[in-house]
Amino acid sequence: MARIVMKFGGTSVADLDRIRNVARRVQREVAHGNQVAVVVSAMSGVTNQLVRWCTELSPMHDAREYDAVVATGEQVTSGLLAIALQDLGVEARSWQGWQIPLRTDTAHGKARIQNIEGGELIRRMRAGQVAVVAGFQGLAVDNRITTLGRGGSDTSAVALAAALKADRCDIYTDVDGVYTTDPRIVPRAKKLAKIAYEEMLELASVGTKVLQTRSVELAMNESVRVRVLSSFQDTPIDENTGTLVVDEDEIVEKETVSGIAYSRDEAKITVRRVPDRPGIAASIFGALSEQNVNVDMIVQNISADGTTDMTFTVGKADLPRARTALAGLRTLINYGEMLEDPDVAKVSVVGVGMRSHAGVASTMFSALADKAINIQVISTSEIKVSVLIAAEYTELAVRALHTAYGLDAV
Amino acid sequence: MARIVMKFGGTSVADLDRIRNVARRVQREVAHGNQVAVVVSAMSGVTNQLVRWCTELSPMHDAREYDAVVATGEQVTSGLLAIALQDLGVEARSWQGWQIPLRTDTAHGKARIQNIEGGELIRRMRAGQVAVVAGFQGLAVDNRITTLGRGGSDTSAVALAAALKADRCDIYTDVDGVYTTDPRIVPRAKKLAKIAYEEMLELASVGTKVLQTRSVELAMNESVRVRVLSSFQDTPIDENTGTLVVDEDEIVEKETVSGIAYSRDEAKITVRRVPDRPGIAASIFGALSEQNVNVDMIVQNISADGTTDMTFTVGKADLPRARTALAGLRTLINYGEMLEDPDVAKVSVVGVGMRSHAGVASTMFSALADKAINIQVISTSEIKVSVLIAAEYTELAVRALHTAYGLDAV
Repeated sequence: MARIVMKFGGTSVADLDRIRNVARRVQREVAHGNQVAVVVSAMSGVTNQLVRWCTELSPMHDAREYDAVVATGEQVTSGLLAIALQDLGVEARSWQGWQIPLRTDTAHGKARIQNIEGGELIRRMRAGQVAVVAGFQGLAVDNRITTLGRGGSDTSAVALAAALKADRCDIYTDVDGVYTTDPRIVPRAKKLAKIAYEEMLELASVGTKVLQTRSVELAMNESVRVRVLSSFQDTPIDENTGTLVVDEDEIVEKETVSGIAYSRDEAKITVRRVPDRPGIAASIFGALSEQNVNVDMIVQNISADGTTDMTFTVGKADLPRARTALAGLRTLINYGEMLEDPDVAKVSVVGVGMRSHAGVASTMFSALADKAINIQVISTSEIKVSVLIAAEYTELAVRALHTAYGLDAV
Repeated sequence: MARIVMKFGGTSVADLDRIRNVARRVQREVAHGNQVAVVVSAMSGVTNQLVRWCTELSPMHDAREYDAVVATGEQVTSGLLAIALQDLGVEARSWQGWQIPLRTDTAHGKARIQNIEGGELIRRMRAGQVAVVAGFQGLAVDNRITTLGRGGSDTSAVALAAALKADRCDIYTDVDGVYTTDPRIVPRAKKLAKIAYEEMLELASVGTKVLQTRSVELAMNESVRVRVLSSFQDTPIDENTGTLVVDEDEIVEKETVSGIAYSRDEAKITVRRVPDRPGIAASIFGALSEQNVNVDMIVQNISADGTTDMTFTVGKADLPRARTALAGLRTLINYGEMLEDPDVAKVSVVGVGMRSHAGVASTMFSALADKAINIQVISTSEIKVSVLIAAEYTELAVRALHTAYGLDAV
């Protein structure tokens, strides 16, 4: 017997048949004696329609009204799922954010959860009632509905699991777990049975879009055990179902490298012959930050002849704003020239075991050298080594690394 | 300067263009210095879709969940209209039933309004903010959403007007007012500038479906001045716009007859040779009531030879249940036979002036006799005379009466 939170995304509740399917899945958990709370998204397509209406009426619409409109999507699903559960003889009721209440700050449209009063839900779950919670929404101090931003239902589910002291938070998606890399590139990629929060964050932010980043951060901070699994696969849940995202202490045999991630969303910028004076880097990145440009990798070579070359990557969409910011600096900083290259890819090897093993980087560099792939920029963190390469080599590099670290399925 | 409540039904807010139209109408009232609250229905078609989903998932669905689902229709419209108003530079915010709060009893799906806390709304309306209120819904004592039943937005608007002590409640519909009779039958029917609550009730319940009956009763009890007007006609409001529904004391020149109504929804039943003993009528109508059969007109002739004939009308849909109820009585009451006639129509002349005038009924009977229309049943109330005739004469009777009472437009 356990207390679990189950979360179903928009494609899992896209129509009445799928909602009935979800109800049967919930029924199974209840039949096993579990206490269950379910978090639901809007039926797929609904949120987009509601957002479009708001935007068409006024591009600069009031975020508080946007929230009142958009939150209805989840409200509908929660009521319908409660009805479907009752039809199966499962006691259930729907909960809107304001009814729980799930309190957030007042940042309408992208609110952050502050507090969930879980007492009443726990009391009812103990009595056998399934709590069907509308995801993605909460209540601000001004008594108005807030939404958490796109993908916010994952965050709702994890926060609820923390508040309810749930044993597990099962996130049902359209994939059956987290893989060692993108199976479209490496057909022999393996599904991971367990993965550490930190690894999940790195894999999510560099390409494997399974869980919303904020929900993983929250799970890590609140020590919520999250299982990612498919809502279309219909077998009983066991140890090997989906991927369990947990604290690394729970992972006994830590793999040196657990996955290979890649991203083609970044562009490389090099500012050449920058005067090598204190405060120059601060000026450059201050100007970029003022233009809301997100900077990822940053490399500065050792200075020669009083100038240095500064290389960094920015989101491809931020490139025009980065250009403007740097052009504006020209009079302040007398740099040589600015070079752009949007045809790059970032490839990363990720693994919590990396901390205790040497040689991860050299294996990576050899594997790429064997394929004659030139490394443009290198950056490392405790659980990740990333390289920037020409975009055309992305698949080749991912496959070579997947093999080099022994990740290919047998 | 006045405080007004404006109510827009589903067809008036059916798409974004119509919502923008509504916003411009509200803007005009605000520009005239009025304090405005707007009550909105769901965009047309939305409520039906939501109801269908609930019913398909479970024909015996939980009314509390039904309410949570169905109330979203009005929530969406309220947010969208607030956005459209702000886009025109009009200060506005949406209010859900639970935010006001508009308190109801717990009869989910057909709740009755108990209390509206209007203080905060009045404060904001005084400060120039338009209150956009989601119609048709409220909050029960268990902190769950209730809905008021179909057509409930009219009732929301009238109740809100009472709570806000509004000078007027303008109900925008797809007709431009209340007519002396159905213009499809009598093209020369006249729009009434004013009508008394009681007349409106009689006209509404016998065929002129403009306002929901409950909303008229509420308006009468709370003395709310209601104006029925078209949301598609785009001229400034004056004395002659639409129809004002008011207390009869406000109507200086009371017309003897203000309108002719008709209904083809009833069927006639005659029970022949019923023993004329005390308690027999109670047995018959008790049995019908147990089967939930609504009975309208009742006529009992003077007794001859110890038996009497009892004639009454029931809703056509109730006919099978009425038959069952009466067949079950056969052993208890030894009546002669039961005759049914579904091909009847009820035609009524309505007017508060009738109380103080004689001759209304005789004018009616002469006019019908002139056209050789046989009267089957007669029933009267203080402000109404109704007759039951063969259905085929409906239009002929309505036209003859419209002319006989001098209602034809010149």
